[in-house]
Amino acid sequence: MFRVVKKSNKSQARLGSLKTEHGKISTPFFMPIATQASVKGLTSQQIEEMGAQIILSNTYHLFLRPGMGVIKKAQGLHKFMNWQKPILTDSGGYQVFSLSSQAKINNQGVRFSSQINGDKFFLTPAKAIEIQSILGSDIMMSFDHCPSWPCSRAQAQEAMQRTLRWAQQGKDFHQRKKLSSLLFGIAQGSIYQDLRAESARQLRKIGFDGYAIGGLTLGEPHFKTRAAIQSALQEFPESRPHYLMGAGQPEQIVDFVQMGVDMFDCVIPTRNARHGLLYVRRKKSLTQKNFYQKIHITNAQYKQDFRPLDSRCSCYTCQNFSRAYLRHLFLAREQLGKTLATIHNLSFYLNLMRNLRKMIEQGKI
Amino acid sequence: MFRVVKKSNKSQARLGSLKTEHGKISTPFFMPIATQASVKGLTSQQIEEMGAQIILSNTYHLFLRPGMGVIKKAQGLHKFMNWQKPILTDSGGYQVFSLSSQAKINNQGVRFSSQINGDKFFLTPAKAIEIQSILGSDIMMSFDHCPSWPCSRAQAQEAMQRTLRWAQQGKDFHQRKKLSSLLFGIAQGSIYQDLRAESARQLRKIGFDGYAIGGLTLGEPHFKTRAAIQSALQEFPESRPHYLMGAGQPEQIVDFVQMGVDMFDCVIPTRNARHGLLYVRRKKSLTQKNFYQKIHITNAQYKQDFRPLDSRCSCYTCQNFSRAYLRHLFLAREQLGKTLATIHNLSFYLNLMRNLRKMIEQGKI
Repeated sequence: MFRVVKKSNKSQARLGSLKTEHGKISTPFFMPIATQASVKGLTSQQIEEMGAQIILSNTYHLFLRPGMGVIKKAQGLHKFMNWQKPILTDSGGYQVFSLSSQAKINNQGVRFSSQINGDKFFLTPAKAIEIQSILGSDIMMSFDHCPSWPCSRAQAQEAMQRTLRWAQQGKDFHQRKKLSSLLFGIAQGSIYQDLRAESARQLRKIGFDGYAIGGLTLGEPHFKTRAAIQSALQEFPESRPHYLMGAGQPEQIVDFVQMGVDMFDCVIPTRNARHGLLYVRRKKSLTQKNFYQKIHITNAQYKQDFRPLDSRCSCYTCQNFSRAYLRHLFLAREQLGKTLATIHNLSFYLNLMRNLRKMIEQGKI
Repeated sequence: MFRVVKKSNKSQARLGSLKTEHGKISTPFFMPIATQASVKGLTSQQIEEMGAQIILSNTYHLFLRPGMGVIKKAQGLHKFMNWQKPILTDSGGYQVFSLSSQAKINNQGVRFSSQINGDKFFLTPAKAIEIQSILGSDIMMSFDHCPSWPCSRAQAQEAMQRTLRWAQQGKDFHQRKKLSSLLFGIAQGSIYQDLRAESARQLRKIGFDGYAIGGLTLGEPHFKTRAAIQSALQEFPESRPHYLMGAGQPEQIVDFVQMGVDMFDCVIPTRNARHGLLYVRRKKSLTQKNFYQKIHITNAQYKQDFRPLDSRCSCYTCQNFSRAYLRHLFLAREQLGKTLATIHNLSFYLNLMRNLRKMIEQGKI
């Protein structure tokens, strides 16, 4: 299922291959986010053309809208949104706490009201897996309790232990139903290193196809993020993929890959794109400081700048349009500006991952 | 420049070929609208893939933003927006009256303030041509005075006569500058048939590469629209293309083509698309009543409708996505819904024109 193709001797970075029901994926990789069965503003053809190997979609959002009745009749999310490559779905845990109203948690699961229409639901570890199975996801995530930041040690410990119990229940359900998709466990424990390590050890005992780190990059100091990641990674089995959920900035991804992370997702490139904040490569080596800059495309300096956004980028946007045109589209509030910016920023991230894989292969990182 | 390839013997419909600096176009044709140098939500690749032969862009909007300084440095609109096929630009006349604040008209031109930032401008017939020449448009429109509806006979006559004087001034400028783009005259006269006929006769005396009918479908009764069009068409030379500006619904286009109109543009398909109002073909023959229907994609009946929007349509949207998915995107307010809907509605119009050309060729209309 997962094969480490090459291990760096300069860092913990690994080149790998992850087999899913919709094809193999080279690790380390980045997943564009299709929260509501759509990467905002892009057709599935555009997502494929930019070289995405896999996308992430959000269980919580799809559960509420269009709802499982529609997805079931559509024969799963792949057919519904016309995406033939792998899909990872999160468990809904994070969103239940951050988006729904009146979430009430107990050891069985979470009771919550839809923020769309007030409908009431009760989500359990088994139910979260069942929903992801209806979605037809290639990689399912265990239902987790993700506390917000800041978070006391006691809160972190309680959420971590509950997440472990839920992980076991989800796994039991997955086995009982003989589901063929991959199932990942999620380590919690906030910034507390011993809790992170304990969480990872216990997950490993249960046994999963892959191991994720949740509940980080929520605003905590970066050195604590790093330490927490380190603590979890040390306890994860080397033979399984390691997934850091919801991170990060490009230079962080370069760092985390060297720490041994294999999978990433983040709203940063797409959200920034929609706000006209665009990634431009500055230096050749990814390990140099400031190897890229973020430019505000609406700045006056781009008014008559007819160069592509990034002359080294081969994406559709950079191959066909100028900074001046992009600036015009943003100032004129034309949707095409956001679409072209999203294509570029995602391409920047996907190229970053491609370069990192190449560097690991060539023993350069 | 314009060649009538075939004249119908059942109606006034003609199949033609119009030569421009960016290639030949088969008439009758429909022009998608790229008001601010962008067909809302679509990449130039998507516009080309759906088979658009030519697009229309708005002089007034581009004059105000990004402004002619940017367009000049970009070496014209084609390069600026990366569109290689022909572009028709309107003269700005219609928008000066409908969008700007405090438009003041005299026989020399129109003084107005930008609705974006209050900047003051004075637009003249020569200036309108000069701007279109900077845009690098393949087909330029003469600066016209387009009165709003309702419009008294006296108002219509004054605007019509002013438009004729301006047409002559624009043509003089076009000749003096030896511009190679095509220049069209615009007949005005509101719903008054004798004014329309007089306007067309006088334009013909001045001599243009093509003849347009402006200032209709502004809310007047349809039979008056038809009569006004008829009056102008009767006086236009057969050897030149006839352009009805800003129309219309599909069944009207079928009718107008049979009256001898060769060129159309309209915001209806794209604006409707953004509101989830989609065109679906119902009957094979374009001359049957109700050969299509408009569906509201957000209606509950499409919740679990996994058929394509239109099973006879070969557009990207119909080939890849279901009504249920489109409905979901609209309800979830995902931009992709608007993009896919726009691709479909424009394809519907472009297919309509393709079918009409085929029917003229086969002597069926």
